[in-house]
Amino acid sequence: MQRTRVHNFSISLDGFAAGEPQSFETPFGHAGQRLHQWMMATRFWSEQGSDGVDNAFAVRHSDGIGAEIMGANKFGPPGWADDPSWRGWWGENPPFHTPVYVLTQHERPPLEMEGGNVFHFLKASPAEALATAKQAAGELDVRIGGGATVVRDFLAAGLIDHLHLVVVPIVLGRGARLWYGLEEVQEGFDVESVGSPSGVTHLTFTRRDTAS
Amino acid sequence: MQRTRVHNFSISLDGFAAGEPQSFETPFGHAGQRLHQWMMATRFWSEQGSDGVDNAFAVRHSDGIGAEIMGANKFGPPGWADDPSWRGWWGENPPFHTPVYVLTQHERPPLEMEGGNVFHFLKASPAEALATAKQAAGELDVRIGGGATVVRDFLAAGLIDHLHLVVVPIVLGRGARLWYGLEEVQEGFDVESVGSPSGVTHLTFTRRDTAS
Ligand SMILES: NC(=O)c1ccc[n+]([C@@H]2O[C@H](COP(=O)([O-])OP(=O)(O)OC[C@H]3O[C@@H](n4cnc5c(N)ncnc54)[C@H](OP(=O)(O)O)[C@@H]3O)[C@@H](O)[C@H]2O)c1
Ligand SMILES: NC(=O)c1ccc[n+]([C@@H]2O[C@H](COP(=O)([O-])OP(=O)(O)OC[C@H]3O[C@@H](n4cnc5c(N)ncnc54)[C@H](OP(=O)(O)O)[C@@H]3O)[C@@H](O)[C@H]2O)c1
Repeated sequence: MQRTRVHNFSISLDGFAAGEPQSFETPFGHAGQRLHQWMMATRFWSEQGSDGVDNAFAVRHSDGIGAEIMGANKFGPPGWADDPSWRGWWGENPPFHTPVYVLTQHERPPLEMEGGNVFHFLKASPAEALATAKQAAGELDVRIGGGATVVRDFLAAGLIDHLHLVVVPIVLGRGARLWYGLEEVQEGFDVESVGSPSGVTHLTFTRRDTAS
Repeated sequence: MQRTRVHNFSISLDGFAAGEPQSFETPFGHAGQRLHQWMMATRFWSEQGSDGVDNAFAVRHSDGIGAEIMGANKFGPPGWADDPSWRGWWGENPPFHTPVYVLTQHERPPLEMEGGNVFHFLKASPAEALATAKQAAGELDVRIGGGATVVRDFLAAGLIDHLHLVVVPIVLGRGARLWYGLEEVQEGFDVESVGSPSGVTHLTFTRRDTAS
């Protein structure tokens, strides 16, 4: 059964997935790299990395995924849509290796890069975008890659089957907020949590009727 | 060394320590009893309860505490200050067994009850109230009992040495919010987290220079 999954989505204790302001120099605003330090310390990220609970979760990112959907603010800093030469943050061989659907009001032609990465830019409802991505993914699952707005919208629309959150023990106070308009969103999910020696907490939400 | 501690303070994933509206019939609003189910299932609460990680944290509530400070909205529902017969939620032998300082704009004479419980009502800054409670506690520690406003104010004033939070896997969406005005409050604390089979996550913040 084809599922829609979120992986390694990192939030502060107060629920922010990025600080502010987002810019080319500071993609995560005043959060800096703190939301992803746990991941950069894993073997998933580099061969010298740790191979414990953080890594076990991190590697699931690429496991059985056939397409990603991301928001405009993950693809680039404010203003990227006005710069025809912007090709994303990730160099010529981004780490997705699938079709990627960038939700944006500013559509442009597809961008084909190395390693099986093709970026498509579309303006569509979450359900429409998901239908397109599922078709592109074939038998495989679709990853919702963030940011906060996109994860929130897909959760609110009831489209997420599996959500992996990483709660980082910092209080950001401001930024891109996940928990808004999601009252009782946990209904229908089995929720597990486990602390890691790195200090983060992994939370998984698995929709009951798709737990298979 | 005398410390100022918070125990068993239970919040939703989105950081609410109570739902709304708070009333005599619904002290926790639309949260119902969900924020404290983990605690009511422990041996700390009843002899048939569980005796694992949840209980290990729960029992620390009373361990070495010589006084409590609580907010007006923990002591009673909206309007209690206009009712001279209101004696708190807890019957004639409340579970504190120490002096309790109720922060309120509506001062009234002390209320002496069974089991060593004496409620004092005072209008004072967090630092002033803490000085009073510390004196009453003698060699023992002071517990900050909540609700959210009071815990937040004491955290913001830098007065908390140990904070035990219990994150319950529900999204309340509205209510009494802990994470507000606390940007970077984690600085100076060692933070640990551990998941429990009950589904909650225990987080502890221990101030570095008082870890003793
Ligand atoms: N913490 C993590 O794990 C994590 C993961 C991924 C990203 N991030 C970070 O999160 C931040 C971005 O998050 P965010 O919440 O600001 O934004 P976002 O979710 O990346 O993107 C939101 C934007 O996407 C466009 N969009 C969304 N839905 C659309 C739809 N249905 N149709 C057309 N356009 C749509 C709109 O942009 P336009 O109207 O401008 O086109 C909208 O403002 C970045 O800093 C990123 O690095 C964090
Ligand atoms: N989740 C948990 O673990 C937990 C723990 C404890 C309580 N709770 C719940 O949390 C809710 C109450 O939280 P809350 O944030 O609404 O209120 P609260 O923190 O209990 O009380 C805030 C009120 O106390 C008074 N106050 C606070 N600081 C003061 C000061 N320095 N001087 C004078 N008065 C002061 C003010 O009331 P006035 O101006 O009206 O006097 C203020 O509105 C209740 O539902 C309670 O059951 C939950």
